[in-house]
Amino acid sequence: MAENEFNSILGVFPVQLHWGDCDPAGIIFYPTYFRWFDAATWSLFAAVGYTAKRMRAEHLAMPLVCADCEFKAPAEQQDRCEVRSRIVRWGGKSFVVKHEVVREDGTLLAQGSETRVWGRYLNGPGSPLKGQPISEELKALFKAR
Amino acid sequence: MAENEFNSILGVFPVQLHWGDCDPAGIIFYPTYFRWFDAATWSLFAAVGYTAKRMRAEHLAMPLVCADCEFKAPAEQQDRCEVRSRIVRWGGKSFVVKHEVVREDGTLLAQGSETRVWGRYLNGPGSPLKGQPISEELKALFKAR
Amino acid sequence: MAENEFNSILGVFPVQLHWGDCDPAGIIFYPTYFRWFDAATWSLFAAVGYTAKRMRAEHLAMPLVCADCEFKAPAEQQDRCEVRSRIVRWGGKSFVVKHEVVREDGTLLAQGSETRVWGRYLNGPGSPLKGQPISEELKALFKAR
Amino acid sequence: MAENEFNSILGVFPVQLHWGDCDPAGIIFYPTYFRWFDAATWSLFAAVGYTAKRMRAEHLAMPLVCADCEFKAPAEQQDRCEVRSRIVRWGGKSFVVKHEVVREDGTLLAQGSETRVWGRYLNGPGSPLKGQPISEELKALFKAR
Repeated sequence: MAENEFNSILGVFPVQLHWGDCDPAGIIFYPTYFRWFDAATWSLFAAVGYTAKRMRAEHLAMPLVCADCEFKAPAEQQDRCEVRSRIVRWGGKSFVVKHEVVREDGTLLAQGSETRVWGRYLNGPGSPLKGQPISEELKALFKAR
Repeated sequence: MAENEFNSILGVFPVQLHWGDCDPAGIIFYPTYFRWFDAATWSLFAAVGYTAKRMRAEHLAMPLVCADCEFKAPAEQQDRCEVRSRIVRWGGKSFVVKHEVVREDGTLLAQGSETRVWGRYLNGPGSPLKGQPISEELKALFKAR
Repeated sequence: MAENEFNSILGVFPVQLHWGDCDPAGIIFYPTYFRWFDAATWSLFAAVGYTAKRMRAEHLAMPLVCADCEFKAPAEQQDRCEVRSRIVRWGGKSFVVKHEVVREDGTLLAQGSETRVWGRYLNGPGSPLKGQPISEELKALFKAR
Repeated sequence: MAENEFNSILGVFPVQLHWGDCDPAGIIFYPTYFRWFDAATWSLFAAVGYTAKRMRAEHLAMPLVCADCEFKAPAEQQDRCEVRSRIVRWGGKSFVVKHEVVREDGTLLAQGSETRVWGRYLNGPGSPLKGQPISEELKALFKAR
């Protein structure tokens, strides 16, 4: 995946690993990384003005097409980490977010990506979604300066 | 709490404890019991005709007022259990569901209750909820015969 | 429950409600409050020196006896809250933590409690637990000054 | 990924989508698929004799190297599905499990894979893991007949 060819802003989403996010091996239960990715993407969009409140008011959503993650080193309970997120590709109606989970000592724990559709509920929240063309205005919001 | 003074039907909701529902102590992470209670209540209502689909179509919901649980013995990974659920109280616009989690060897692992409002979304899913009077027809559906 | 008769320190644990912690009603899925309570208790103990690392090294744990929560007002996606936690009772081998979830506008969203045993794994992590007498030294760590 | 070149047995793991596994869009919150994948893998291993109890007793574990999923169609609350799982590759100390999530009407909702290490805790549960060579005996257990 091309590294930031779009010169995207970097979202930084702080997380901490809790007891209940760990499994009997004493390390992170892996779907937790995907929960963090999802929250980090919402945070990235909020940072450019697309808050949860606005997304809801405008009947917007960003359902997933696919997601993947490589696990490099296990997070342990109370580890503090950052999810560092960038948009690395814009398609006509979809986009790709790349995420890296970095522990506070600088260790890369995991990296992965989400491909999402930019969609609108046809009849309000909970109704079927339809992909929307991604405008230049939307892309410009994520441009690093 | 009065034991089934309303002669309520018994809902039986099978569950199994998975790796990811356990904590580093190797036993169930306790909020999992509440996840099971919630799913068991939905299953109990589905059994009398109030399926998720119908609840959604009729803009009904059952938000929580309070919940509690006593933990008697820990569930371990791959334990098979049943959540046994009954309605033990009907109020004007609310009701109480009592739940027991029983392992397949008959051991009671946990017991608790949920108090819920019988509510309707004023403007479709996601909009504010308003408590609805609980009709005799609704109560009758849960009567054991 | 007696309000802070032990003059306990107050733990403050910041949380934010994420998309995946909400249900189809668009509000917090209630077991999320218990996930927050659990993490807040671990944070409170870490604040007085019982970090996750130390708990693990000394084979200590704090399994639940019971938990309860009252839901006052629903949290919505991206709401920022604090879980405010105090120890409100010390028993011989158990203790009670009271938690309040307060949104940044000051609204009390939920309040509840956890009763926990102070326990030690007899043969290392994952082995059976035995309740330990709670020492005066332990209690003193939580005394507000 | 080669389709069952190893003629692996098929694991079938039944799941149902619950209220709390859905997001405000009223459909499955995507990390739920990965929770299902994890449980389905444990179920597949249990089916050939490697139950959770045995894994624990023999200090075995199967930590993740990577995971991915494509989302084809959204699951809705109370949908009944099967996770169909096969081992599609054996490496020296790792293996790949392919999963398909199929709704009871036959619709493929999601498909993905997990790459895992076959590992042993050096000093009991919770201690560091070391990859173990995968024996012919282990592979033979998964051979369809």
